[in-house]
Amino acid sequence: MSEHSAVTAELYARVQHFYAHQMQALDAGRFEDYAATFTKDGVFQHSPGAEPAVGRDGIVAELIAFHRRFDGDPVRRRHWFNHIALAPLADGSLRSTVYALVVTVRPGGRPEIAPSCLVHDELVVEEGAIELRSRRIEHDQMF
Amino acid sequence: MSEHSAVTAELYARVQHFYAHQMQALDAGRFEDYAATFTKDGVFQHSPGAEPAVGRDGIVAELIAFHRRFDGDPVRRRHWFNHIALAPLADGSLRSTVYALVVTVRPGGRPEIAPSCLVHDELVVEEGAIELRSRRIEHDQMF
Amino acid sequence: MSEHSAVTAELYARVQHFYAHQMQALDAGRFEDYAATFTKDGVFQHSPGAEPAVGRDGIVAELIAFHRRFDGDPVRRRHWFNHIALAPLADGSLRSTVYALVVTVRPGGRPEIAPSCLVHDELVVEEGAIELRSRRIEHDQMF
Repeated sequence: MSEHSAVTAELYARVQHFYAHQMQALDAGRFEDYAATFTKDGVFQHSPGAEPAVGRDGIVAELIAFHRRFDGDPVRRRHWFNHIALAPLADGSLRSTVYALVVTVRPGGRPEIAPSCLVHDELVVEEGAIELRSRRIEHDQMF
Repeated sequence: MSEHSAVTAELYARVQHFYAHQMQALDAGRFEDYAATFTKDGVFQHSPGAEPAVGRDGIVAELIAFHRRFDGDPVRRRHWFNHIALAPLADGSLRSTVYALVVTVRPGGRPEIAPSCLVHDELVVEEGAIELRSRRIEHDQMF
Repeated sequence: MSEHSAVTAELYARVQHFYAHQMQALDAGRFEDYAATFTKDGVFQHSPGAEPAVGRDGIVAELIAFHRRFDGDPVRRRHWFNHIALAPLADGSLRSTVYALVVTVRPGGRPEIAPSCLVHDELVVEEGAIELRSRRIEHDQMF
């Protein structure tokens, strides 16, 4: 249980802040900003069973396609994160395992909170910059 | 997407901790402690369309008036925050944009989680102390 | 309202990270890892009115007994934390007061989010390691 000790408090706070801006970009529909948080060859699998999107252009295209389903259905979505657990990988990158809940709001409605997910990230820290090498989402209700 | 780099990890963690104490004070009904987290001329607009309260005494008065609505309706309220995104402003202060959910519990009941909000704060950091210059709450269901 | 100033940002981030690993261990059923986050004579009262478990073996035994109730009822539980508020105690340890929500998911179902709790912890920081001396859970609906 001391694997967290291998990650400095300084890096931990930076990862939290990285996620805050990243997820606010996603939820605001700023897909290019979201994609820019990935490495150039970053891999993003937003749903179990979905084909992963690869590269920043691929990620933007996937997000545009996904959100097209909600044309004519005005919806605001907020991805909440909790318990960001970091562990160093052998190559110097970081594994990050995070709880997520999706809060969905429609005009005049109350928030729906679903699904509950586990986020599996690999983060690369180079010259002070944090980038996401891969993200895979696991859904809690599928077991 | 690198605007977060302009804020140190040290300041980021301090802002998180500031919010933790601030919001626990509010939810515990310690309105003077809550008001004391604002600057002397701080501005607090807790609901869209509401007249903003100005100054610490004004903030306390507004909170007392607001909570009077719940006389005879015992209720516990917890304001949850997520994804605190900081960005430096030109004058050296910080813009802070935060997700919020209000958890409401009544005796013997289950939590209701609503509304989902966006918190727009301006924070002043002076001689090591953090103070809130203004807070404006946006409700997600109003769009 | 400046009691948070007595806790460094570095320690604050470390406590957050400690909780992330600790609670992911609990929710994954790694009870020995969870118990190892307590001091040798650590005290854990997971529900109001329950007899507190004492010591790591006692904590593991209590968790096994508690989860036996859910034999034949597949359930995934995620404990969310928010607003970790630290305050130094006279003996150099830390009081930590934290909001918690329990997210429960069953196969194919939607998350249930209950109860809302207040976590009362005492943390010991020695030679760089964080350990939990005691944890007591208060339920919000009991008032």
